[in-house]
Amino acid sequence: MLGSGFIARFYADTLHAQRRKDQIISVYSRDAANARRFAEDYRLARHDTDMEKTIAAENIDAVIIALPNHLHEEAVLACARLGKAVLCTKPLGRNAAEAKRMLEAVEQAGIFAGYLEDLCYTPKFLKSLSSVKAGALGRVLWTKSREAHPGPHSDWFWDKALSGGGAIIDLGCHCVEIGRNFIGKSVRPVEVMCWADTQVHPIEAEDHAIGLVRYENGAIGQFEVSWTFRGGMDLRDEVMGTEGTIWLNSFLRTGFDMFTTGKGAEYVAEKAESATGWLFPVGDEAHELGYPHMFSDMFDAIEEGRPPMETFYDGYVVNAILDAAFLSAKSKNWEKVILEDWRGDRQTSHEKSHISYNEQYYLIKKEILPNGDEKLILKEKTTGKVVQETKRK
Amino acid sequence: MLGSGFIARFYADTLHAQRRKDQIISVYSRDAANARRFAEDYRLARHDTDMEKTIAAENIDAVIIALPNHLHEEAVLACARLGKAVLCTKPLGRNAAEAKRMLEAVEQAGIFAGYLEDLCYTPKFLKSLSSVKAGALGRVLWTKSREAHPGPHSDWFWDKALSGGGAIIDLGCHCVEIGRNFIGKSVRPVEVMCWADTQVHPIEAEDHAIGLVRYENGAIGQFEVSWTFRGGMDLRDEVMGTEGTIWLNSFLRTGFDMFTTGKGAEYVAEKAESATGWLFPVGDEAHELGYPHMFSDMFDAIEEGRPPMETFYDGYVVNAILDAAFLSAKSKNWEKVILEDWRGDRQTSHEKSHISYNEQYYLIKKEILPNGDEKLILKEKTTGKVVQETKRK
Amino acid sequence: MLGSGFIARFYADTLHAQRRKDQIISVYSRDAANARRFAEDYRLARHDTDMEKTIAAENIDAVIIALPNHLHEEAVLACARLGKAVLCTKPLGRNAAEAKRMLEAVEQAGIFAGYLEDLCYTPKFLKSLSSVKAGALGRVLWTKSREAHPGPHSDWFWDKALSGGGAIIDLGCHCVEIGRNFIGKSVRPVEVMCWADTQVHPIEAEDHAIGLVRYENGAIGQFEVSWTFRGGMDLRDEVMGTEGTIWLNSFLRTGFDMFTTGKGAEYVAEKAESATGWLFPVGDEAHELGYPHMFSDMFDAIEEGRPPMETFYDGYVVNAILDAAFLSAKSKNWEKVILEDWRGDRQTSHEKSHISYNEQYYLIKKEILPNGDEKLILKEKTTGKVVQETKRK
Amino acid sequence: MLGSGFIARFYADTLHAQRRKDQIISVYSRDAANARRFAEDYRLARHDTDMEKTIAAENIDAVIIALPNHLHEEAVLACARLGKAVLCTKPLGRNAAEAKRMLEAVEQAGIFAGYLEDLCYTPKFLKSLSSVKAGALGRVLWTKSREAHPGPHSDWFWDKALSGGGAIIDLGCHCVEIGRNFIGKSVRPVEVMCWADTQVHPIEAEDHAIGLVRYENGAIGQFEVSWTFRGGMDLRDEVMGTEGTIWLNSFLRTGFDMFTTGKGAEYVAEKAESATGWLFPVGDEAHELGYPHMFSDMFDAIEEGRPPMETFYDGYVVNAILDAAFLSAKSKNWEKVILEDWRGDRQTSHEKSHISYNEQYYLIKKEILPNGDEKLILKEKTTGKVVQETKRK
Repeated sequence: MLGSGFIARFYADTLHAQRRKDQIISVYSRDAANARRFAEDYRLARHDTDMEKTIAAENIDAVIIALPNHLHEEAVLACARLGKAVLCTKPLGRNAAEAKRMLEAVEQAGIFAGYLEDLCYTPKFLKSLSSVKAGALGRVLWTKSREAHPGPHSDWFWDKALSGGGAIIDLGCHCVEIGRNFIGKSVRPVEVMCWADTQVHPIEAEDHAIGLVRYENGAIGQFEVSWTFRGGMDLRDEVMGTEGTIWLNSFLRTGFDMFTTGKGAEYVAEKAESATGWLFPVGDEAHELGYPHMFSDMFDAIEEGRPPMETFYDGYVVNAILDAAFLSAKSKNWEKVILEDWRGDRQTSHEKSHISYNEQYYLIKKEILPNGDEKLILKEKTTGKVVQETKRK
Repeated sequence: MLGSGFIARFYADTLHAQRRKDQIISVYSRDAANARRFAEDYRLARHDTDMEKTIAAENIDAVIIALPNHLHEEAVLACARLGKAVLCTKPLGRNAAEAKRMLEAVEQAGIFAGYLEDLCYTPKFLKSLSSVKAGALGRVLWTKSREAHPGPHSDWFWDKALSGGGAIIDLGCHCVEIGRNFIGKSVRPVEVMCWADTQVHPIEAEDHAIGLVRYENGAIGQFEVSWTFRGGMDLRDEVMGTEGTIWLNSFLRTGFDMFTTGKGAEYVAEKAESATGWLFPVGDEAHELGYPHMFSDMFDAIEEGRPPMETFYDGYVVNAILDAAFLSAKSKNWEKVILEDWRGDRQTSHEKSHISYNEQYYLIKKEILPNGDEKLILKEKTTGKVVQETKRK
Repeated sequence: MLGSGFIARFYADTLHAQRRKDQIISVYSRDAANARRFAEDYRLARHDTDMEKTIAAENIDAVIIALPNHLHEEAVLACARLGKAVLCTKPLGRNAAEAKRMLEAVEQAGIFAGYLEDLCYTPKFLKSLSSVKAGALGRVLWTKSREAHPGPHSDWFWDKALSGGGAIIDLGCHCVEIGRNFIGKSVRPVEVMCWADTQVHPIEAEDHAIGLVRYENGAIGQFEVSWTFRGGMDLRDEVMGTEGTIWLNSFLRTGFDMFTTGKGAEYVAEKAESATGWLFPVGDEAHELGYPHMFSDMFDAIEEGRPPMETFYDGYVVNAILDAAFLSAKSKNWEKVILEDWRGDRQTSHEKSHISYNEQYYLIKKEILPNGDEKLILKEKTTGKVVQETKRK
Repeated sequence: MLGSGFIARFYADTLHAQRRKDQIISVYSRDAANARRFAEDYRLARHDTDMEKTIAAENIDAVIIALPNHLHEEAVLACARLGKAVLCTKPLGRNAAEAKRMLEAVEQAGIFAGYLEDLCYTPKFLKSLSSVKAGALGRVLWTKSREAHPGPHSDWFWDKALSGGGAIIDLGCHCVEIGRNFIGKSVRPVEVMCWADTQVHPIEAEDHAIGLVRYENGAIGQFEVSWTFRGGMDLRDEVMGTEGTIWLNSFLRTGFDMFTTGKGAEYVAEKAESATGWLFPVGDEAHELGYPHMFSDMFDAIEEGRPPMETFYDGYVVNAILDAAFLSAKSKNWEKVILEDWRGDRQTSHEKSHISYNEQYYLIKKEILPNGDEKLILKEKTTGKVVQETKRK
């Protein structure tokens, strides 16, 4: 385990729960005290402030990178050099160039490399994705992924040079990859339009942004990210298809409602912004956020010699899309997604098929009105003229 | 009542319910059969195919325009000419130029003119707005208004020349005005970014669009409109402020859930896309959509000699914003909102105030971590450097 | 208007809203100051402390009784004597004997008499009832109606002698009549089992009770009432039928969620137990509670010479059921509902029909298992033996 | 693994997921083909139709009983005889006498014995319980646990002699133990009132029941169970305390909503009663139902030499409560819970403490009315008289 902060603890809590067989052996931190404390808390045999030594140790099969964004590349390159399987937290890089170097390093070294994109492993997401792939929603037209809360946990997040950006890089990486999965990873992301602003916090980076990613088949992947939200952590996704709709709420409304006057107790609800009144805890936070399913896929993939569901290549594509988002926020134009290394479909057509009503007309809509009348909206095939027919009940 | 279609019936149902004292006297329709049927259904004394005659009749105090978009101007000008109070359905015009002519006509004629923007009168909206104005959410940063369903009820909606556009003009007018109310009507809308596409239907106009309206104070009013949604009518609004959040759901999740196998009955749920399985009816549709409160405000305003909450000027501003949206969908740039007649505040600053932690630092965030530690994220006032302090529990 | 307290104000607010034509003329209160304040607040021409005089006034067509429970009988008898239409708030009497005397008085006087059971007029209830009557749920098996909050608004509620009981008489009257409507007013309520206790408040009457009303056709009408609930006002109903299910939430979860830190404002949410954190206001409280539809039905019924949907006879049946509930809470047995005056069906059979699978078997259940197998659970018609058949996918 | 049916498969799916270290070695079934199929599906080394031999095998550390209710005792006695740790599915026995014999057998044998009550291990339940124990709800007054669906999966469930009853024994065992946990396992259950009926299915046993369990401290544990529910699987719990409220929904409303026209696909949603329209899947069914946390607690307990959270003694208490419920459904009286072996508190008082307002009065309620007035409801300490004070705003 490289890193001993908030996310490293979440990972460790997950791996140490539910009688899992995979064990954390040692921890590296730049800060000796933090390394020692982490090792104590999780009863690890070793802790160190020397990253290379930690990675190189003999009984280490895989390395988990839970470091700040600006240290990912260094750590990945070390793993590649030392030939150790590597799992890197999100975002992969601060930008596509960094991500591409990491991707190339692990591919040249021939090591296993997994991208720890937990929100693409939540149980709700996995089941949704399987429904979408089974065709339950028809052709996907639009996805929206939203992550908003009052701001991240560590100083480096708030420093653009170290993190690579604000809410876009921190939260947008999740949202973009969720949309990409629903729309199809083989469909090329073409261009991005993004608004971003620093509305509340005394920082340089954006604390609120909305973006639209347009894919080659005409589908839109929308992201909404914010460090200015009040009320807890808002994690919601939506998918619209020609034959259906999915709405997911992964945190604030999951079937767990609690009201407390706060009189009886020193009780404080996790991640909530208030400790009294109506609160909305989640049952098992790590599970709801996808950590257990993510690590199961990763270690199963290592054992089975297959790539995981989320790879370094995915991380690279996400960074490329976010690069375009940052550019667009400045230029105020739609910006092309630059993917020097595109491995998906060459060309995806904007597939549309219209429903023929009879020889003369296409059917636009058929509807029963409140007064019982049936109404048909039709379009003449040759002239394009729209007409309606009403049949009285 | 000018018009005898879907919306005219909704208005008439509202006015004839709940023992209201305001009476519909006569109906005008271009089609004699429709006029007669409407008059029969609502037991009106008169029906006609001559608009001017209908308006001019002596016992008519106010005229309700429930006509297709391309006929609004003609009807409004007739009311102005004949000196009758006029209530016009949404959108006011097909574009800002048309709206401006209507606005000027009623102001020159000195007649009462109300803009029938029902979704700014739903009980949930009215109570939300009063909370926002009372400061419950602090400074408003972002609003989102979403209206999506499988498409409108009449042929002319689907013909761009008659309607002025597709989902943007039909649904976006609601969403834009909802956002404008929350952000403040006196705050100038500056520019619009909009994506629009015809993803499903065999029409020229857009059947899906997403737009961002940026206001002078930095707030964003987002709209999401679609004629391609599956699952019923999706009507949701959100507001984010520095001190709070509002989520409104006006149709599909209002505390009314019904499951039916469909075996026992010929029962068909209104506006639902299915008649079996889980259904989500609303209790009183007109009420949930704001019609009763809208007409109460309009007629009260006439009696009290005050402007209604939604005026022709509001309709004009909405059209100007939508004009920019249409332009942006084509140009793929942010487009300025052109308001030749701006009556709000001259300049609104991007007000931000940072919280001083002590002489040296601003406070970015204070947080209790899962392990009980307290963490402070601070920014040095002089250098801008971000640091963190952790106090062990 | 007889009475000037909490419920009288709710009624007056309803009648004075939405441009209704029915006018309140005068108010009676036992307390002169309260009468004057009420008259001022609602701009009434007259106020008085003489009940008889108030009722007898010439321009009064109908009398609304919004008095404490122990004064209903006196007021109803006065209306009967003076021949004025009377609308009486719930519960009709403190017990069935009192209710029966009121019922007989109005019937002998031949006056219109309406029972102001508002929760049987909420928009959600009305639409549900129409679905149930249309057969969408098949045969109704069970209903549950729940009303719970931290306790009522006036002193007399808390005094058993004046009110006739605690939460059972105050809230149970709603719940029982909701269940009775869904199950069918013509189906005889046979017996009641009820638990009641004084769990929290320093009072004699029960502050929490659960009851089951068994109807002749085997259906159960469950009520859950409490003055000890924390979190606001909990108003929920459920209906289970052989072909479907209905869930209604009329107050705390109606599609209106608000979070506020409470910093910016002196804002206080109505009826909520807290003014900060997550709050759940309702859009239009009177509407959600059924008042507008209730008064429309009442006055329409007067004009149309028909009985209203909720009559004094209904009020009497409710009181008879509650009498049995009180008895059961003491005796700890099921207690018969004593209805000397039963106007519904003489006998309703416990109708059940079993599905024949083939000549040999009834079908109990058919199911697809997670592994794809189809499983049939069958019952042999002659022997009653239960067997299963599994067909592998 | 003893048993190869529906629940055995659920257990095996759980144990084989998420890289758990505990392994299933062999399976016993009365039916050789079923045993073989199960062993194949889960890649087990051995399968057998000899129960004793299966239990006795050397490399077996613990035995999981996933057999029909009438075979639990035989299997438990075999484990006791052979000295193997035993985990038995719910309900422990068909009645308290059977459960007591099993309890005594395992205690005399000195073996580990765990009661597989999965719904007391759902993540939502575990977090709720910890909040309740931390005092967030004050004194618990009432709990409600509800489980309802269209009926169970195997023939023996529907045969009273084999199962011990219908919905009460099948589902009530969950609900009773959930309530007992919230109220406190050391508080004695005193008596039970239960209604039960066979409303729909062609069976002898009850397919619908409602029961109230009264505990010595006055708290009520309500259960609602049904095999007649339409709409899927309804799993909801509620807790009311003097300082708060909890509402849990574990299946049909967990933040996962999907609409599908069903056109595109052969997709069938699990456990749903319909495959089109609005569907409400759960992300990870086993997790939502508590299986992973249950097995983790069981195996951790074995390793740590401590009892699990749910023991055979708990199973015995549940059976004793259900015995009283069955008796009450027949006798139509409250029936005592007979616990020959009671290990909890000897006596729990009905603790109530009233809030003193001043020397003269207790405070019943303090409230802000809609018109801004503050109202106090007080009770005179000496006379018990209830009075109110209103302070105008």
